[in-house]
Amino acid sequence: MNLFEEVQPVTYSEGEVYFLDQRALPEETIWLKIDTLEKCYDAIKTLAIRGAPAIGIGAAFGMMAIAKNAPDSSFDEFYSYMKNAKEYLERSRPTAVNLSWALNRVNDIILKYKDKPIKEIKDKIEEEAILIQEEDEEVCRKIGENGQQFIKEGMGILTHCNAGALATSKYGTALAPIYVAKERGINVHVFADETRPLLQGARLTCYELYKSGIDVTLITDNMAAVIMKKGWIDACFVGCDRLAQNGDAANKIGTYGLALLAKAHNIPFYVACPISTIDIKTKTGDDIPIEERDGSEITEVMGKKIAPLGIKTFNPAFDVTPNELISGIITERGVIRAPYDLRKAVEALNAGKGKKHDLIQVE
Amino acid sequence: MNLFEEVQPVTYSEGEVYFLDQRALPEETIWLKIDTLEKCYDAIKTLAIRGAPAIGIGAAFGMMAIAKNAPDSSFDEFYSYMKNAKEYLERSRPTAVNLSWALNRVNDIILKYKDKPIKEIKDKIEEEAILIQEEDEEVCRKIGENGQQFIKEGMGILTHCNAGALATSKYGTALAPIYVAKERGINVHVFADETRPLLQGARLTCYELYKSGIDVTLITDNMAAVIMKKGWIDACFVGCDRLAQNGDAANKIGTYGLALLAKAHNIPFYVACPISTIDIKTKTGDDIPIEERDGSEITEVMGKKIAPLGIKTFNPAFDVTPNELISGIITERGVIRAPYDLRKAVEALNAGKGKKHDLIQVE
Repeated sequence: MNLFEEVQPVTYSEGEVYFLDQRALPEETIWLKIDTLEKCYDAIKTLAIRGAPAIGIGAAFGMMAIAKNAPDSSFDEFYSYMKNAKEYLERSRPTAVNLSWALNRVNDIILKYKDKPIKEIKDKIEEEAILIQEEDEEVCRKIGENGQQFIKEGMGILTHCNAGALATSKYGTALAPIYVAKERGINVHVFADETRPLLQGARLTCYELYKSGIDVTLITDNMAAVIMKKGWIDACFVGCDRLAQNGDAANKIGTYGLALLAKAHNIPFYVACPISTIDIKTKTGDDIPIEERDGSEITEVMGKKIAPLGIKTFNPAFDVTPNELISGIITERGVIRAPYDLRKAVEALNAGKGKKHDLIQVE
Repeated sequence: MNLFEEVQPVTYSEGEVYFLDQRALPEETIWLKIDTLEKCYDAIKTLAIRGAPAIGIGAAFGMMAIAKNAPDSSFDEFYSYMKNAKEYLERSRPTAVNLSWALNRVNDIILKYKDKPIKEIKDKIEEEAILIQEEDEEVCRKIGENGQQFIKEGMGILTHCNAGALATSKYGTALAPIYVAKERGINVHVFADETRPLLQGARLTCYELYKSGIDVTLITDNMAAVIMKKGWIDACFVGCDRLAQNGDAANKIGTYGLALLAKAHNIPFYVACPISTIDIKTKTGDDIPIEERDGSEITEVMGKKIAPLGIKTFNPAFDVTPNELISGIITERGVIRAPYDLRKAVEALNAGKGKKHDLIQVE
């Protein structure tokens, strides 16, 4: 069984690139063929593809598809076309770091092989896109492997938002330990909270786990405490958007509350993310700016109005879970534990360069 | 300013009975004229009117309106018609205790005045309906007055679900201290969580507070921890569906989680409800049966599908907040405090019979 067949944000098959249209999930499974610059731009801009790693992978494959239409009479003509495309795509989601990072990798490849025939450059772009996808898959799989120490047959796991296959190349981050366990024949029971306001838990996490044959039960956000009290949850796994030096973790709104509820019920609470999520320049969670989004995300659900016109709202997209509520940070290089000093942890990683995927135990 | 002008579930004006159609809120304000048995039955059955006290009041006024159509050539004919109507209405929401309680009060009145002219019996039904409404309003107002000791100008209050004017006759229970404060010129800032799955917080609490000129901000359920951490919340007020003898409180799903979050932030957590909510026969919260409702309430929001077809759900309608998380139980007769022995508290109340609205301090 191919675990990820139906939940890959980017599919590359026989020279064609497809994005899974995540706007239509879970009601419809639509694959968007990406064969022009405009289609690639629109798909990223309108969140047909979302999740930082997935956007980077999608942009690289998009550039590969776009290269097919590029003029190939001279390198200058070809490069001018591709550089235009790169700059245009960069404007689709200006804050997504992975987007420009992936586009720069493709640009560097084009320049590196500028003296080769255009056909060969196109092949090199294809290789680079595949490499970016494979590297991300490897990082996610390693997170999953390093998380196995916290997995037991039949256990109950609560997750929040979507930090899974739909946001990365296979495995995801928070869901990686669950997928790796599944590959090894270990089955767990997952509870996904719906994750208001944008319902990524209900729409995306439930979709990808269900499609992958993993036991999943949907609850509303306010039911977490009850299932913890019932003894149904043995561990929580969440992703992370930014880790401060002291281990404070910014993640989707609702994560902090879940961490408090987990502590009240003596349930371990794990954050799973790549090392690249650690931001050493940010001392503590207080220094992480929290994006406030439009109130209509709260007053409407999928276009349907649910609150009186003109009502005041507060809509922070993220919250910060203080380090003392985190039982461990699962990365592709190992698990970081309290007391958290992520500068020291990163130094330990760098010192161990070459010895890939060692377990980091900063204790 | 009439605080409750636009948020009365039942309005009686110039001999006509109207129910506010709560299914249409907050998008539309529709008053349903209740002048036939069928209209009254449908309104209760389809939740146009909801909230146990409001259903009782609505049924009593409904019987008054129905009596107008009753044959009046003889008492037997009249009573047979009214008894039929009563039995039919009782089937509209078979589990709502207040419904049959109110219908029985009307029935008793009819029998009490059986020797009077039919016209006089009809007047007595009208008087009884008005009395039921006035008694409920008095209970709610007293809850509000007894809650004033916990209210301070400018404070922040978090509430859950709808235990307000739309569920009772004015004031509500959890919202009563807020409305009484407003009448006295004391203003507070209310945060209402949306209360998934049925969104009573977003649809009803926001509507009634907003219409009453009370400062209210809507959040999703998973944002409560963040606003507590920010220091915006000085107290939580929630209603209650059933109080066990030991003070454990069954209320809308999500209440238990909020109580844990309040404790983690040292925020007092008050339950407000009439004495009739105390169920001495139920020893602890473990003995309270929790209704599980259809999964479609979770997989759909106002008719819009938000989760994959066939996904498993868990949908308990209520949860139980253990007594140790409750800072005080605000009733129409006073505030009950820990350690909770509600049998003792009710005995103290009965002993003080006649000295209405004394403060109960079982300490």
